Amino acid sequence: MRFAKMQGTGNDYIYVNCLEEVVNEPDILARRLSDRHFGVGADGLVLIRPSGRADFAMEMYNADGSRGEMCGNGIRCLGKYVYDRGLTDKRELDIQTGSGTRHLRLFPGEGDGAGGEIRMVEVNMGKPVLEADQVPAISEHTCMVHEPVRVGGVEYPMTAVSMGNPHAVIFTGHVRGIDLQRLGPSIEYHGRFPRRVNVEFAQVEDRRTARVRVWERGSGETLSCGTGACAVLVAGVLNDLTDRQVTVKLIGGDLLAEWREETGEILLTGPAVHVFDGEV
Amino acid sequence: MRFAKMQGTGNDYIYVNCLEEVVNEPDILARRLSDRHFGVGADGLVLIRPSGRADFAMEMYNADGSRGEMCGNGIRCLGKYVYDRGLTDKRELDIQTGSGTRHLRLFPGEGDGAGGEIRMVEVNMGKPVLEADQVPAISEHTCMVHEPVRVGGVEYPMTAVSMGNPHAVIFTGHVRGIDLQRLGPSIEYHGRFPRRVNVEFAQVEDRRTARVRVWERGSGETLSCGTGACAVLVAGVLNDLTDRQVTVKLIGGDLLAEWREETGEILLTGPAVHVFDGEV
Repeated sequence: MRFAKMQGTGNDYIYVNCLEEVVNEPDILARRLSDRHFGVGADGLVLIRPSGRADFAMEMYNADGSRGEMCGNGIRCLGKYVYDRGLTDKRELDIQTGSGTRHLRLFPGEGDGAGGEIRMVEVNMGKPVLEADQVPAISEHTCMVHEPVRVGGVEYPMTAVSMGNPHAVIFTGHVRGIDLQRLGPSIEYHGRFPRRVNVEFAQVEDRRTARVRVWERGSGETLSCGTGACAVLVAGVLNDLTDRQVTVKLIGGDLLAEWREETGEILLTGPAVHVFDGEV
Repeated sequence: MRFAKMQGTGNDYIYVNCLEEVVNEPDILARRLSDRHFGVGADGLVLIRPSGRADFAMEMYNADGSRGEMCGNGIRCLGKYVYDRGLTDKRELDIQTGSGTRHLRLFPGEGDGAGGEIRMVEVNMGKPVLEADQVPAISEHTCMVHEPVRVGGVEYPMTAVSMGNPHAVIFTGHVRGIDLQRLGPSIEYHGRFPRRVNVEFAQVEDRRTARVRVWERGSGETLSCGTGACAVLVAGVLNDLTDRQVTVKLIGGDLLAEWREETGEILLTGPAVHVFDGEV
């Protein structure tokens, strides 16, 4: 079976073109191939399939074999894959995912020798959900915005946002000094977040730039998180700390997040990188 | 550049056939390719080169780009590579490494459809060094055998062995319950081991079987360690806990270690697995 390994801001997936390849038992395959010592090594497996109602379908499996719904970094690389390999010549695509259809815009690199390969991809991440009971977060107000939550004897002002998954955003002076190994799990499992929560510590450098560290529910600190970048943007706007367009600087790289006023949707733009082709 | 990813008991390397490929700046390449999120992902890079005094030369780089000398798991996979790809038809090979020439014996699998591909490889790991001042370990005796060393208020009986690199072996009732994250660094940096030390906790199941967890100097707990398996065998014999042939059960798989009486050398046999071919 032929595959491609791709990554976006350090989120890496194995891509298989299922218009050509047949994959049986993708859950078992995902677990086996994702292993970083005995397999190919990846955050998961993405199967590219035909779709009746979109240009392509993205079928995603996590490294543990469970079904993944959507991943902002993963879907960007899918866009690059289908364009670079000539499966489509469209620069705007609809991709069917486990959580609805997502719209992509593909941007080729300029002036490099790569001959118009895609370098950056924008994905429409949809509208944030702010109502606390829908995030879900326990709050006395309709929305949890800059609301003090006590963790280990210290009060942290938190803003809760759902991007399909729940996020708690905390603005702080310096993200580098944050003891995320200690604070991450304390907030993830805090009683105010009944379905647990992803945690973002964000340091606003100016109204269009934030430096962010992410603690992902069930995964710990990660290099990057697309929905987390969106949550930071939304929290930045709600707290009037940022404009509606923010460069989110994550450990794995930069994402540009824009909250469109007309539609209420968030557009997330970032790199999509092909690492290597392989055959197992 | 074409490469193969291979692993032995979970130690995984990227192999490049430098009889065909040209590699410039291998240290930079090793660092870039070894990254498990942005690159191919591996413990390091192995370049297969021609040799004037052996069948092939193994040029090894660690994941941080530093030069590696020898790796029992890495050299086994090199043996499989050169045989399976027809670079040699010999089943006994001499391989030039950064720490001398090593002799390999290759064993193909039987009865599988793979058509005689190599499954197991034996590597001559040379003679252990037992003199404490050469390990180095600080001892009142010539050799450190079952000598109590105080760590965090508890005395652990340690046996010190060098296999080119220093090891401290501790026999214990149950390896699973050992708090290696705490004990590993305390022993690695203990004053009795002036050049630091690799640490093996070994649970003897019978005189031919030991279950082992390894703390590698500079790396922390690892899935497997070839020289560590040899050190456990030597310590087992010196403490009269094992025979001269022991199956060492590591997290990443089993290694068979044999201390030959006639030559004083240790033969280490284990699996060599091809994971995938790739191109960057």
